Parts: sequence; structure tokens; C-alpha cells
Amino acid sequence: MIRFAQRMDLLQGSEIRELLKLTARPDIISFAGGLPSPELFPVEEMKKASEKVLSEDGTKALQYSTTEGFETFRQQIADMMEKHNGIKTHRDNILVTSGSQQGLDFSGRVFLDKGDVVLMESPSYLGAINAFKTCEARFVEIDTDDTGIKIDSLRAALEREDRVKMIYVIPDFQNPSGRTWTLERRKEFMDLINEFEIPVIEDNPYGQLRFEGENLPSLKGLDTKGLVVYLGSFSKVLAPGYRLGWVCAEDKLLNKYNFMAQFSTLQASTIAQLEVSKFMEMYSLDDHVEKIKAVYGKRRKVMLDTMEKEFPEQAIFTRPQGGLFTWVVLPEQVDTTKMAKKCLEQKVAYVPGASFFPNGGSKNCFRLNYSCMDEERIVEGIKRLARVIKEELS
Amino acid sequence: MIRFAQRMDLLQGSEIRELLKLTARPDIISFAGGLPSPELFPVEEMKKASEKVLSEDGTKALQYSTTEGFETFRQQIADMMEKHNGIKTHRDNILVTSGSQQGLDFSGRVFLDKGDVVLMESPSYLGAINAFKTCEARFVEIDTDDTGIKIDSLRAALEREDRVKMIYVIPDFQNPSGRTWTLERRKEFMDLINEFEIPVIEDNPYGQLRFEGENLPSLKGLDTKGLVVYLGSFSKVLAPGYRLGWVCAEDKLLNKYNFMAQFSTLQASTIAQLEVSKFMEMYSLDDHVEKIKAVYGKRRKVMLDTMEKEFPEQAIFTRPQGGLFTWVVLPEQVDTTKMAKKCLEQKVAYVPGASFFPNGGSKNCFRLNYSCMDEERIVEGIKRLARVIKEELS
Repeated sequence: MIRFAQRMDLLQGSEIRELLKLTARPDIISFAGGLPSPELFPVEEMKKASEKVLSEDGTKALQYSTTEGFETFRQQIADMMEKHNGIKTHRDNILVTSGSQQGLDFSGRVFLDKGDVVLMESPSYLGAINAFKTCEARFVEIDTDDTGIKIDSLRAALEREDRVKMIYVIPDFQNPSGRTWTLERRKEFMDLINEFEIPVIEDNPYGQLRFEGENLPSLKGLDTKGLVVYLGSFSKVLAPGYRLGWVCAEDKLLNKYNFMAQFSTLQASTIAQLEVSKFMEMYSLDDHVEKIKAVYGKRRKVMLDTMEKEFPEQAIFTRPQGGLFTWVVLPEQVDTTKMAKKCLEQKVAYVPGASFFPNGGSKNCFRLNYSCMDEERIVEGIKRLARVIKEELS
Repeated sequence: MIRFAQRMDLLQGSEIRELLKLTARPDIISFAGGLPSPELFPVEEMKKASEKVLSEDGTKALQYSTTEGFETFRQQIADMMEKHNGIKTHRDNILVTSGSQQGLDFSGRVFLDKGDVVLMESPSYLGAINAFKTCEARFVEIDTDDTGIKIDSLRAALEREDRVKMIYVIPDFQNPSGRTWTLERRKEFMDLINEFEIPVIEDNPYGQLRFEGENLPSLKGLDTKGLVVYLGSFSKVLAPGYRLGWVCAEDKLLNKYNFMAQFSTLQASTIAQLEVSKFMEMYSLDDHVEKIKAVYGKRRKVMLDTMEKEFPEQAIFTRPQGGLFTWVVLPEQVDTTKMAKKCLEQKVAYVPGASFFPNGGSKNCFRLNYSCMDEERIVEGIKRLARVIKEELS
């Protein structure tokens, strides 16, 4: 008789996924996904980088490599983290992963036994919730406000729950809320962490995509006790197709991640690492990021301006300083999962908010992405959305 | 306080890994790894395939893609399986993975709760043992002989153990033993499986690398009840650097693997899939495999002939009809882990057999790989090895 592992009962198809499939249709104006804008991919540059790698290092690129990743590439990552995130680290404190989603997967498996508790911002990233579900974790959601995770709620949870194994947070341009923690909040958070000495998973895929305001130090940069595990990604600053991300942590923690990688998938793609490394050597990733920021920053502005103009007053939304998302809260009586179907009839899509709350509830919110549609479609899509919202509220 | 998951207690650094690091030194004749021979990689062809993909489909290649994998690529895989393994399947019964090691990782997580039992050939592949360890499985080893897994031992285990969730086997050119199951044994195995209805993970990374004898149907090809999960890989027939493998299974089982992929790492690399797919469209993978077989077949012959001539009679070894490995059994008093150190002094390396027995024991065996050294080095290495063995036995 075929009997699956118990974790498989928790891994179910979601309405969201079905919705996202529909939104791939070209006639839909989709604010649903979190895709980078493909016309910004440096295709010509990657072609040259690829050619150079295969000409100079072909056999190396196609062979197995070490679990931790290609040394030059880890050095480039370490340099980048110092420059942009104020993190002084060593390449040996970096593990290259198959996308930063794998860093989430490893985080769950390194820390979580069945029934262990993960603390996370409420709402939080769906992909992290999913990854931790595979470990049969229990989720405790911590309240957030416009300045970040709420310290009193976090303290209460840390005092109440005795199986807390880790805290998962996205301090920069959070997914889904678009919010960024203030410097003060970061410091308060680290004080509390240092008191309880609980590992923190700091997920930072969007940090470099800041359109306005001042760069703030990452939690890892403020970490004095080696408690923060930093997850980085090339998906949003370069391209997701290579599936490359990384974990940065102190030896004691990173060793566990290295074991997890060795025992599960061996290594990230050798050729992908060499090609992205070569791109960074031949071109400036910073310059490329500036181009992306210019486009996304404008799209964000157009989206927010149009929302300001078209949305009814009862629709509250965040004003992200960077990243890919804004978060809309409607009056409590609105069910945005049901409303999503009406929107689809009007050929406009978003992700209903309920997916971002691991324990359910909060049906009156939704997430909007602005990176993947041009300005004209953003204006048109927001207008359609506004009409449906007004109907809902009338 | 930092507390790791219990599974991390089982994931430890191994002597083998330290050994393998040493064997990377160019002055060592290494029969230790399982690496494909890099000079056979189709570097020029992959350069052209890559250029074509980035010219024709650049933005698609660099973007996120579906969890199950690129449709054309899955069709090519399905066609390949029908041609070489006698498996009639549909592309929708295929999930592309980040190396077939990920197929092993998913297999453990789909079926195994802590304490559940995996049945496997004794000895078996170290990477599979490792992957299943992350699920805190219990391993029950089944005796094998030169014709395959022993049916009476398997029946006894199935009758005795009540938590058997899956059976892991490598019927073609097994790692580490180099043995291939006879057709009769395959049929007896499937009869028993059909009686107990336990899922089978059939790992077949080397199946296409047959140097002599007749191709035998895979277990999946003999599977009438949808119990066999087939794992395939591009690492040995093309190149490991792309990290591409696949899982083929009936809907009910594959759905679980798809969920596992969605919830853990999202998808295999888009650009890797498109490039390998393009290679298969532009060139003949079969022709490439013929080239590999010619070289490995000769190396195997040179290794076996030299062993025949140089090894003492008490050293028994297998005569693989394909794949990458032969397996040597010495008299019981020899500890091949200790002997490996002496061999390293003579600048020759192998993998001690103990690693391939999940429950320990059997210290008198070792695995030799013949794919990665040229013929001259094979002769010299085997001569050195023979001297050390003779010393051990004297």
C-alpha cells in the first residue's frame, strides 16, 4: 500500500496557483506574480559571458563542483554584501544555493522538527510559509506596523512559546506588504534577539532595489552574536532563470547549511555560477541594477499615483520605497479571494491577501506587483481594479 | 539558544569527503570519484546551443518557469525513455529536477516520516543514503548477488518490517557494485512488489552507458500498477554542471513530487533546461553517448585486464557491463578504510566500501571508478593498488 509522509498532507494545490496560471494569459493585466520585467534582462551581455565561460573554462563549467560554490563567485558575493548591505563577511561564510528559495528550504530543515515554532511577520512571504510547511512547523504570526515588526508582540511570543527555533523576517521592502523597517526598529529587534539568542533568517531579495530614501543596514550588518542567517538572491537584480541565491552565516550555522546541501542536492549549477560570475567580471551589476530601479521606480510611481486618484478612500495602501510590491487593505467586509474572480472577468489580477497569513484570516487585503507591466497597462489595470472595489463597497 | 533540528545530528562530515578532497590533487591517480570524463563534454556544441537559446529565446531563458519543467524538454525526455528504457510515458508524467540527486531528496521527503523504513540493496549509493538520512529514516539492507537483489531476503524484510515506505534500487550498473539485475530477477522483483504494493525508487543514471550485452527493460517498463518512480539524469550522459535530472511516475505519485518541488525550490533552472533541450534538438545525444561509451568501455577493459593480471587471487571483483564502477572484495581481515591511507601515500585512491552500507560493517570492500583516468594512469594506478593489497595480505 502506498503511504506518503505526513508532511504531504500539508502540501496542497492552492487557489493562488490556479489563479496565477490564468494570469499568464496575455490579455490579462496581471499585478499578481512577482516576476522581474523580462525586457530588462541583460540577454546580450549574458550571451557574451556564456561564450567566454565556455571558451575559457568549458570543461570546468560542465563538471561537478564543490558544495559551497565557486570560490571567485563567493568572493564577488561577499564584496557585494559589504558594498550594499554593510556586511563584512568572508567568502567562506557563503554557501551558493539553487535560488534563495533553496535557502528557505534549508533553513527549515536545519532548524525545524515537527511542531517547532517559527515566528514570522504577519503577513509574510508565501514561499517561506510553504518551505517551512514541509517541516511541519507551527507558525506564530507577529504583528507589524509601518515601521516594521512590533517588538512588544515579538517579546510576548518569545516569552510565551517554548519551541521557537527561528524567526523569519524581510526587513527591506517586505513581501507582500512593501514595508521597510526603520533603523530604530532594526536595533530594537537585534537587542531582543541578543537577549533570547534565537536564530534569525533575514531574507533580502529586494534590498538593492531602493527607489528613494536612504539605504539602511541589514540585520546581518548589526549582528554581533552570529545569530543572523542572511539570504540573498540574483533573481531580482539579474535574472531568476539561473536559480542562484546564497546563504551567509557564521561558521557554526553555515556548517549546518553546508551539510544540508551536501546531503540533499550536492551543489548549485556549476555553469550558472561561472556565467553569472563572468557577467559580474565583464560588466557592472550595479549599473544594471540602476537600470532596473529606474524602470520599477517609475512603474511604482504610476501605480501609486493612479491608486491615489482612482481608489476609494476606504482602500488603504502602502507606499514602498523599493522592491516589487504594494499592499492594499480594504474594509473588513470585503473578501478579496472572491473579488479576485470578478477582477479576472475585468481582465485584471492580484494575489488575495489570505495566502500570506499562515494561520488564515485577513481576507480583506491583497498584494499588487508593479515590476512586470508597462505604465499604460498599470494605469488601465488600476482603473479596472478601482471600479470593482467601488462596486464591492457600494 | 540555538537549537538545530534533530536530523542535523545525523548529517556529519565524512572521512570520505576529506579523502575526496585530497584526491583532487593532480598527482593522485584517483579511482575514487564518480566524475564523468571532462574531455568528453561537448563544449563546442553547448556553446552553439547556448548562443542559439539566448538569441532566440533570451528573455524566456532568464525568467522563472513552471515547476514541472519546460514542455519541449519533458517531451524529449519522454521520447528518450521510450527509446532506451522501454518506458511508454507522457511528458506530463515527468518532473524536471535540479540533478537526479534532487529526485532522491524529494523521494525521501514524499514518503518518509521519522523512523520509517527504506529497503535498499546492500551495498547501495552513498548519495541516496545521505538524502534519506535527512528524513531520519531507518535503513534495512537487502542482500544482493551477481544477478541482483535477493528476492527471498526482500520478501523476508517486507513480511517482517511494518513501516516500509519505499524500496530504493539501482538495477543497471549499480553504484557501487557495478552489477546489473538479470531480466528474470527484474520480473521476480516486480511480482513481489505487486504483491506488497510498495513504491519503488528506480535510480538509473548509468543505464545508457552499456558497453556489452543486451539492454534490459527497466523496472518502470515492467511496472503494471504504477508503483515505480523512475529517476533519470543528464549528469553522466551529457554533463553534471547543469544539474538536470528528472522524475517519471504515474499521476498520483508525481503529483506529490510536484508539490514537493513547488514547496521547496520552485523549479529547476530555466536556462539550463532550454540549453540542454536545444543541444538535443541540434545534435544527437545518442551519438554523443556512443563516444562516451567507446572511451569508458576501453578504460573499463584496461582496468579489469590489469586487475586480472596484477591483483592477488583473494581479491574478488565485479565485471560491469556498463556504468562507471567496479567493486572489489578483499578477505575479511582487511580494513579498506585504513588501507586507503597507505594507498594515498602511493598516490592512488578509491572509496572504501564501508560508506555504502548505511548500517555499517563490511570493511573489506572498496569501489573503483574507471571513467575519469586515462588508460596509462589506470594501468599505473592498479599496479600501485595491487602492491598495497599484496602487502596487506602478506
